Amino acid sequence: MRTVFFISDRTGITAEVLGNSLLTQFGDIQFKRVNLAFIDNLEKAHKAVSKIKSALEVDGQPPLVFSTQISSEYRNLLSSSGGVVFDFFDAFIAKIEDTLGEKSSHEAGLSHGVIDTKIYASRIESINFALTNDDGLNAKNYDNADIILTGVSRSGKTPTCLFLALQYGIYAANYPLIEEDLHSMNLPEALKQHKEKLFGLSISPVRLQSIRDERRANSGYASIDQCRKEVRRAEDIFVENKVPFLDTSQISIEEIAARILNKKKLKRRY
Amino acid sequence: MRTVFFISDRTGITAEVLGNSLLTQFGDIQFKRVNLAFIDNLEKAHKAVSKIKSALEVDGQPPLVFSTQISSEYRNLLSSSGGVVFDFFDAFIAKIEDTLGEKSSHEAGLSHGVIDTKIYASRIESINFALTNDDGLNAKNYDNADIILTGVSRSGKTPTCLFLALQYGIYAANYPLIEEDLHSMNLPEALKQHKEKLFGLSISPVRLQSIRDERRANSGYASIDQCRKEVRRAEDIFVENKVPFLDTSQISIEEIAARILNKKKLKRRY
Repeated sequence: MRTVFFISDRTGITAEVLGNSLLTQFGDIQFKRVNLAFIDNLEKAHKAVSKIKSALEVDGQPPLVFSTQISSEYRNLLSSSGGVVFDFFDAFIAKIEDTLGEKSSHEAGLSHGVIDTKIYASRIESINFALTNDDGLNAKNYDNADIILTGVSRSGKTPTCLFLALQYGIYAANYPLIEEDLHSMNLPEALKQHKEKLFGLSISPVRLQSIRDERRANSGYASIDQCRKEVRRAEDIFVENKVPFLDTSQISIEEIAARILNKKKLKRRY
Repeated sequence: MRTVFFISDRTGITAEVLGNSLLTQFGDIQFKRVNLAFIDNLEKAHKAVSKIKSALEVDGQPPLVFSTQISSEYRNLLSSSGGVVFDFFDAFIAKIEDTLGEKSSHEAGLSHGVIDTKIYASRIESINFALTNDDGLNAKNYDNADIILTGVSRSGKTPTCLFLALQYGIYAANYPLIEEDLHSMNLPEALKQHKEKLFGLSISPVRLQSIRDERRANSGYASIDQCRKEVRRAEDIFVENKVPFLDTSQISIEEIAARILNKKKLKRRY
């Protein structure tokens, strides 16, 4: 068991994302994670150092400290804690300054704060858009959508739309293919005029059954026959209408979102 | 105008978080961002190199390349492109290996893939939880909530709940304080038994007015008097019932979420 600290003068999101990303490369080790966010004065910095020192004593080996400290004073303090410090600004900022021929602003909290109020407002609006246009609601808003996800119920449309909004500010609607849509090889009426915005999510019938069974155990809706039939027909519709689609059975919403961005060349709004 | 590439063998999320986080420190420079995800074979790596070379020619100065390539072969290729490469794994992995006394797995796609199906399923369930328990729905589920956000309409509860779910796998419900709740100094019935899970979101009346006005222009709902009255009463309820609360007027949902995690010492589920 190894203790890992994530320390930041603000939200700690960057330190966590980056630190956790590195730790995934060491799958055999159990880590105890300690998050110390908003370390923005000397008193808090000293407390953080004490915590690292205690962990060093208890573990008998130096904790890992992932940090995004703008203040070099606090960063030096952390370095004196006995932990092994990986500071993300420290590692890269000098080389970037050299490359750009400009000094960095050394201002904290820029990564996840409200920097540009217009862009921020549009991002929040994209979240509202995903909610208002979830599950086939408000097809009249599709003109404003960047992307419209479609597929059978429980193929991952809603979480993917929300992730596209939160992470990238993308306006994502979703339209579920229901029984009556699946009787024909044609696209549902609501989708016909927006063919270029469509992206299909498919899924293996077995995986779909297991997801549906969690919701409505032993229902016709969750039966393997029903799942097989719906998936086959949905894929037929995608192929017939040249809608690009993806099997989501084994991949995360992050991967689904990234593949959609990549395939449809969608512009991130941030 | 400077071109910046984000290159990854998988989703590119880590490369984007890292690069964008660093670039916020150079607010005066306009960057043109190019995202190249899923660069996972030699052909794609060569294409990426060509794109960097073209950008170098067009810009007349070397592009910045933020990369999370596990393959050292492709990484070396990128280095020969004329771009200035900031490779995230390259910068840290050797020092972490030294610290942990273990070799990294050198496996791609671990940061944002489905590594542990149980943890992943729980994270998706937390998104469903936020949706099902949005806007005061299903107060009976509050036993399963990690946190219940409360505040007047449009104080930021829903996007914050969704972010807490997507980013941290936290089960977050939200309960809006409506007219009838604001007549009394007591907590609404639905919240009384869950006092220890409550967190209040407040907002300046002027900011609230502007947000509400976007939705329903010139309505009573959006009037400054109404906003002032609701915010004052909501804050009275928070103070009277010792519910910790936060002014969300100037801060992002990332910052709201981080402050809640910090204050309530919530355990991330990832």
